[in-house]
Amino acid sequence: MVQPQSSAPSSRALTVGVLGAGTVGTQVIRLLTEQAEEFAARSGALLTVTGVAVRDVEAPRDPAVPRELLTDDATAVATGNDLVIELIGGIEPARTLILAAFKAGASVITGNKALIAAHGPELYAAAAAAGTDFYYEAAVAGAIPVVYALRESMAGDRVTSVLGIVNGTTNYILDEMSTKGLSFERALAAAQELGYAEADPTADVEGLDAAAKAAIIASLAFHTRVGLDDVTVEGIREITSQDIREAHASGCELKLLAIAQRCRPEAGAAEGISVRVHPALVPTDHPLASVHGAFNAVLVEAESAGRLMFYGQGAGGAPTASAVLSDVVAAAAHRVHGGQAPRESTYAALPILGPGAAVTRYQIQLLVDDAPGSLAAMAGVFADHAVSINSVRQSAYVSQEQAVVTIVTHPAPVSRLDAAVEGLGACERVLEVVSIRRVEGE
Amino acid sequence: MVQPQSSAPSSRALTVGVLGAGTVGTQVIRLLTEQAEEFAARSGALLTVTGVAVRDVEAPRDPAVPRELLTDDATAVATGNDLVIELIGGIEPARTLILAAFKAGASVITGNKALIAAHGPELYAAAAAAGTDFYYEAAVAGAIPVVYALRESMAGDRVTSVLGIVNGTTNYILDEMSTKGLSFERALAAAQELGYAEADPTADVEGLDAAAKAAIIASLAFHTRVGLDDVTVEGIREITSQDIREAHASGCELKLLAIAQRCRPEAGAAEGISVRVHPALVPTDHPLASVHGAFNAVLVEAESAGRLMFYGQGAGGAPTASAVLSDVVAAAAHRVHGGQAPRESTYAALPILGPGAAVTRYQIQLLVDDAPGSLAAMAGVFADHAVSINSVRQSAYVSQEQAVVTIVTHPAPVSRLDAAVEGLGACERVLEVVSIRRVEGE
Repeated sequence: MVQPQSSAPSSRALTVGVLGAGTVGTQVIRLLTEQAEEFAARSGALLTVTGVAVRDVEAPRDPAVPRELLTDDATAVATGNDLVIELIGGIEPARTLILAAFKAGASVITGNKALIAAHGPELYAAAAAAGTDFYYEAAVAGAIPVVYALRESMAGDRVTSVLGIVNGTTNYILDEMSTKGLSFERALAAAQELGYAEADPTADVEGLDAAAKAAIIASLAFHTRVGLDDVTVEGIREITSQDIREAHASGCELKLLAIAQRCRPEAGAAEGISVRVHPALVPTDHPLASVHGAFNAVLVEAESAGRLMFYGQGAGGAPTASAVLSDVVAAAAHRVHGGQAPRESTYAALPILGPGAAVTRYQIQLLVDDAPGSLAAMAGVFADHAVSINSVRQSAYVSQEQAVVTIVTHPAPVSRLDAAVEGLGACERVLEVVSIRRVEGE
Repeated sequence: MVQPQSSAPSSRALTVGVLGAGTVGTQVIRLLTEQAEEFAARSGALLTVTGVAVRDVEAPRDPAVPRELLTDDATAVATGNDLVIELIGGIEPARTLILAAFKAGASVITGNKALIAAHGPELYAAAAAAGTDFYYEAAVAGAIPVVYALRESMAGDRVTSVLGIVNGTTNYILDEMSTKGLSFERALAAAQELGYAEADPTADVEGLDAAAKAAIIASLAFHTRVGLDDVTVEGIREITSQDIREAHASGCELKLLAIAQRCRPEAGAAEGISVRVHPALVPTDHPLASVHGAFNAVLVEAESAGRLMFYGQGAGGAPTASAVLSDVVAAAAHRVHGGQAPRESTYAALPILGPGAAVTRYQIQLLVDDAPGSLAAMAGVFADHAVSINSVRQSAYVSQEQAVVTIVTHPAPVSRLDAAVEGLGACERVLEVVSIRRVEGE
């Protein structure tokens, strides 16, 4: 499939098939048509959309999608073009269609995070067998080039962690709760009204969409296969206005984070990677704390590069189309000039650690007996479990004898942190463990 | 030079020559040696450094650079390797050595912004003639993948503007002046002490380093040749503590910005691009305002993607080495799997506009006659020059008859803004034009 280098770069013609004509597909088709000359100048190939597969050919549509291209024969579109853009979403029939496209010698561009998280290795293998390209920049954080950054910009470096706000819906909800004091239900309703959240918001609010992205991020960052089942997930459905107020009182924002973390034995942790999605306290002066509304941001830490942050619109028709089209140009250029998209990189094959091995910090609120020796007793419990304390703050007196104390630990494996919490529960000076929250971001 | 696709990706061996063994070169050599297996897994090629060209072979060096590789025969290193990494800097002998490397069939990786801004087209042409790769991620903003983002991630989109803090030295100086109230001279001395600024700080403080980066950014963003001479440059040497205080009083930070802007006639501007470097007021709630210390940040606005921001360490040995090594992996992978780095893209060939055509906003401070009709008279002057006013604020009464008024305009071409200022100077209600500052970032 590698093409000889051409001295007349615009001489090639390539056909494009689009599976799905929703918001993103419509933008992609419109731009490929309106800016055909620019795409030819940039890729070296004249790109022509020859078919758009939709479920209902008769449904009313944006005039940007020419009616004569519409068909309900998705297999014909998948197997009859040089480049196939899959924008149906979900596992089936997307998977079968993409595999058919590779078998027919097409390069495939998709934004289907759920499919990649579930069947990435199979899709990569099909692309390699066909000698064609598999691209999916749009699967993570819309137009923000996170997939590229991890797959190519970090190719000369060692990533140590990735911390991201990769789901705009939940960030919008938490931001409304934080800035306007709304309840979860009212913030969700506002997100639904604006079209940020679906009528059934499960995939977003329960963290599943972010988990698929976390699996993709971790696979790329650590050259290891990571599937959806490897991700520990906790959503935001249980977050209350009270939780947000307490976050503010601690100088933090509460954010839903996708985390991919390299753990090393020398840090007192197990060797391997931890991949997880959960709400966490983020100090207000941390760059992720000021990511508002439906925006996305991804923070990559690497041994040489240090900390890099990428920020932008993580969803929506136009930004997602921008990501899809950059992949289209890359795949088309490979047809003209030779070359290939990066293949699956799994050489590191690091162990994927369970939830207990994740390294994080805890903020623990305790109702304690306010008498001499209480702090020493609590500190002793932490020391017994090899957990260091970062700060202790007395939040409020409940009565003359009782006080609420907020303790923030240094980073430690969750198993040790949980053991310490259990030890606190058994400590006679501790009357109640009021709350436990993870703290992320230094 | 396109290699056949290999089924045994680690079977190739490639030689690497390094020109220059300063901070960045030392890191590059150390990492290529220490992480040889990872580089082989990622690129498909075993990379071996065969020579390191330095001026003085006998000088004391970091032990990471093996003495037996040192040579003062730079031409032999440039012409005797598959991949050549140029880290000498400056125009000559870097240019001659790179051209010799291409002629000998090498792929070249450099971080030499001055050379690219001055001779980019010649270097691109030499790479194309040789059928090899020319990569320079490290030339702009260190480890932040700005070159890639513009050259490849935006390939499916239309960039409308790029606004960047791309010189860490000047950002450090301005940040010290802003946060600690230091004078320019004291902040410069602090930067020199920390090694952020050179003994001769001219290239940084006069904006020349940022201008070279602006030329590179504009070339990539707008598919148009832009050289150093096309950039309008103003440095920060004249910035005083008083300027910083006035910026704060206006709710702004003062930043040295590199700006590449697409101007369109429909916005009342000329058709073409404006490329410039100058200090500008940036509203404190704008993402660039909170870029502290020696960090870099680049804001890209594109038609589909909307606003993207990239943030990280723009200089230093390790971050720059990270960028160089990602290019090394890409160039090595092309040798193994076929394919090529993007060629020079100049198809748009947009006109480069002079300083008067730049579209910006002005903040103008005027000492005015505080009598009825003054505002109407001033507003009339702006209207005469088709400049809209965004805000008017009375800053201070100087006396019962005189007041200082601060006016911020809407965006307009500099020529019209300057004509309006001239008109104000001639207006009898205006006693003095106290200051004029550009405002960037909405």
